[in-house]
Amino acid sequence: MSAQPTVIQPRIVEVRQNILKRNDELAHDLRQRFQAAGVFVVSLVSSPGSGKTAFLEKTLTLLKQRQYRPAALVGDLATDNDAARLARSQAPVKQITTGTLCHLEAAMIDKALEDWKLEELDFLFIENVGNLVCPSSYDLGENLRLVLLSVTEGEDKPLKYPTIFNSSDVAVVTKLDLAEAVEFDWNAAHANIQAVRPGMPVLGVSAKTGQGMDAWLASLASHRR
Amino acid sequence: MSAQPTVIQPRIVEVRQNILKRNDELAHDLRQRFQAAGVFVVSLVSSPGSGKTAFLEKTLTLLKQRQYRPAALVGDLATDNDAARLARSQAPVKQITTGTLCHLEAAMIDKALEDWKLEELDFLFIENVGNLVCPSSYDLGENLRLVLLSVTEGEDKPLKYPTIFNSSDVAVVTKLDLAEAVEFDWNAAHANIQAVRPGMPVLGVSAKTGQGMDAWLASLASHRR
Repeated sequence: MSAQPTVIQPRIVEVRQNILKRNDELAHDLRQRFQAAGVFVVSLVSSPGSGKTAFLEKTLTLLKQRQYRPAALVGDLATDNDAARLARSQAPVKQITTGTLCHLEAAMIDKALEDWKLEELDFLFIENVGNLVCPSSYDLGENLRLVLLSVTEGEDKPLKYPTIFNSSDVAVVTKLDLAEAVEFDWNAAHANIQAVRPGMPVLGVSAKTGQGMDAWLASLASHRR
Repeated sequence: MSAQPTVIQPRIVEVRQNILKRNDELAHDLRQRFQAAGVFVVSLVSSPGSGKTAFLEKTLTLLKQRQYRPAALVGDLATDNDAARLARSQAPVKQITTGTLCHLEAAMIDKALEDWKLEELDFLFIENVGNLVCPSSYDLGENLRLVLLSVTEGEDKPLKYPTIFNSSDVAVVTKLDLAEAVEFDWNAAHANIQAVRPGMPVLGVSAKTGQGMDAWLASLASHRR
């Protein structure tokens, strides 16, 4: 039932390693700048359509209501639809369009922040391009990486995309309002997440109904402390 | 609202072009072998969790019932869960695990087919790794490429991932049984698909209820002729 893939060319591996090394150095600098400015940085990764933008819009809105100063960078191959959606929260938002690249890199974050004063922010959210593979190797200087998984995607995604779950800090199960309609098996999903990354915290939310958002914000506040 | 991405290194572009050129040559050979053997080859691309495997299992089962001889290759980074699911259709199925690669390549198809007699097949389905970016540039020798989009992912996916929609021949909107629960806007999704690839045929299906499957099989038969 199994066939081996072709081997990646040594030369492309070498080039990729150089790119990753430069990215890591820049991410390290970013992390120091974020800490000095007192801004807590959270990145979000998931499949396309897992509900990152809806979750983030709700998060920004609630944080604003609670007198925090959040902002967001959002990555996509094309369009600035997501930035337009997030801007409804009244938080500062900037779109990064990557063209054909399937992930954000630290250099893009650095450039996007050029004209922002980090000291005026409490939270910075970075929504990565929707992809369960490419973003996993790129450190963006974040303090916390969330991997989102919607109930409609199937419980076995963590087993199929182990690297992205392994490189994340918290798993967020989204679209809980649809859980019944798709017969989502929470215990199976939870077990699969734990199989890939033992001890990983798992939150459940619905941006539509607000379910689970208070627990998420409490968790966010405790991570920041 | 927009920041420019970093420029990809010229050297990595060159290496990538060489890989793509070799892939195209091998895909060309595969396509000739498929034609000589009389097998019609359909590849499937989509986000993770769009329902490729459920759609394919239903398709294989219905084709078997109608006395066709279908088979499937299925790609994933890890696990052979999908092959196990598809094998329930009684069609020959083989899993290709790609490790960290986010797409299938022609060489993997070539290797996976080594011990299969193509003359004994009417249809070969190739389910790519769940990803809306990486698979678009890799020709697998298929006759028809389907891009799947589930109603839960949002209507704007074609605008955000134009290349994969542009490189596909038919769009299939999946999980129609959930359309009402997520307030899916068919006209908006259709318009976005047409904006990216004018004239693209769009089918709607639910593998769960069977809705739209007859029209899909009729379309498949007409493509084969």
